[in-house]
Amino acid sequence: MKHEDFLEAYLQDRCKIVEEALERYLPGKDNEPRELHAAMHYSVFAGGKRIRPILCLASAEACGGDLAPVMPVACALELIHTYSLIHDDLPSMDNDDFRRGKPTSHKVFGEATAILAGDALLTEAFALLSRAEKIRLAAERRLAVIQEIALAAGAAGMVGGQALDIRTDQQAPDIGALTDMHRRKTGALIMAAVKTGALIAGANDRKLSALAGYANHIGIAFQIADDILNVEGDETLMGKSTGSDAALGKVTCASLLGLEAAKARLAEEVGAATACIASFDARALPLRAIARFIMERKS
Amino acid sequence: MKHEDFLEAYLQDRCKIVEEALERYLPGKDNEPRELHAAMHYSVFAGGKRIRPILCLASAEACGGDLAPVMPVACALELIHTYSLIHDDLPSMDNDDFRRGKPTSHKVFGEATAILAGDALLTEAFALLSRAEKIRLAAERRLAVIQEIALAAGAAGMVGGQALDIRTDQQAPDIGALTDMHRRKTGALIMAAVKTGALIAGANDRKLSALAGYANHIGIAFQIADDILNVEGDETLMGKSTGSDAALGKVTCASLLGLEAAKARLAEEVGAATACIASFDARALPLRAIARFIMERKS
Repeated sequence: MKHEDFLEAYLQDRCKIVEEALERYLPGKDNEPRELHAAMHYSVFAGGKRIRPILCLASAEACGGDLAPVMPVACALELIHTYSLIHDDLPSMDNDDFRRGKPTSHKVFGEATAILAGDALLTEAFALLSRAEKIRLAAERRLAVIQEIALAAGAAGMVGGQALDIRTDQQAPDIGALTDMHRRKTGALIMAAVKTGALIAGANDRKLSALAGYANHIGIAFQIADDILNVEGDETLMGKSTGSDAALGKVTCASLLGLEAAKARLAEEVGAATACIASFDARALPLRAIARFIMERKS
Repeated sequence: MKHEDFLEAYLQDRCKIVEEALERYLPGKDNEPRELHAAMHYSVFAGGKRIRPILCLASAEACGGDLAPVMPVACALELIHTYSLIHDDLPSMDNDDFRRGKPTSHKVFGEATAILAGDALLTEAFALLSRAEKIRLAAERRLAVIQEIALAAGAAGMVGGQALDIRTDQQAPDIGALTDMHRRKTGALIMAAVKTGALIAGANDRKLSALAGYANHIGIAFQIADDILNVEGDETLMGKSTGSDAALGKVTCASLLGLEAAKARLAEEVGAATACIASFDARALPLRAIARFIMERKS
């Protein structure tokens, strides 16, 4: 099977099982209050690529672990990612009207319900992580997973990254500040996805450290690819307008380095990610494929 | 010692040790991003009464438990309560400019940072609950505590209550709907405080069930007392203007039942709370005192 065919079939299959699990884990749409639960479902099932849960599953697989005990953790990561998108899109933050071709949460449900839907999804993630019957894992290891995810999502990680991003609207960052911001805003949760998958699979320290290296490089690559797509992506495939970074005068890797240098840097990061897991056997094939997907994706 | 003197000394002492613990647990004010950490500290140290952490500690004491292993849980509850106040005060929610006599978070730091400070405090609560070295407790029991708090804080509990509260701005609730809304919005976290304190102290099912009854009644009492204070409280002591519910045409227990009937109901609930823990020994004295404090408080 060709690389592209394998990757497409793999991502489709994983996306499907992640979405089935999200349907099972999320409180039903008909629960009271209806508007709140409708808003939670609207954003969770708005067509995300499920990169974080898929990474979490692939990391466990690469370490020889089963998928079942990883699934609640993978889904919790997606709930946290979804909440962060809802809050980032709010009028007082990035003020985005569309995401993935659909109106953003506050455009559909109003600002108050959008804020509460984000709050509820974040809280639901920790309810899912701590639910006794759902994860067949030693309690100590489950606490370590919760700790890893809480630190990655909080002020030292993702929320801190968004706070830095707001600040860069006022003062232009250099490449160091920009990298630090992205390491927190998107890198930290990608790192947590890869590390918790490996933790659940019982990976040893050598493997954990190799996977942390992999996660670091694909986190950077992911952001550079985003910046490049914003310059030259296809609006129809993206479901949002491109060129918005430049129009807003936003400093990005692409604007700081130039488009060609940014592409070279992207290829370097993907190569470095793959090199980190060179010693892994064929079970790491999905992780290698995902690294290439990040570079080649069109949306 | 008279009841009032005991209570005052007890609450002051507990407030002090809770605030010292919050200072230890919360990431430092000088961490980057500064605005975010400053906003987190601003609201956490804005002079709250610390009712939830004090209840959590008192519940553990009533079951013969030590305070030390309860403290991180008590503080996590206060972080969650604080985040909920920040988000509830936002312009798109209750649009409050002052709380406890001080400008609300979004008035000081702007809306975006206020939203992020709330998000970060909620996340930090779960980081604190899962921090290995901080709680000397069996991992299984710690997971049960996290589960209890996550469910109380989420869509089925506190966030759901706020969503119902927003809805009541549009349609007037009857006393049943009002009670359900308050049970979620303030009752659920009070219930979690009392139950997790008892869980950590290793309470048996009989004690847990008695304490759940106590928590249910003081949760209702707490809200009725709030409504009464909004009608006839002293603005100087409260740090906010009174009469705002009536001015906004807000339906409350006081407006639905009438002031005198609301006061009678308050006394009934406090009596019922105390009756639930009648079989407890003198170590439940603080819980009994707190029930009376809820009825007699002036702010």
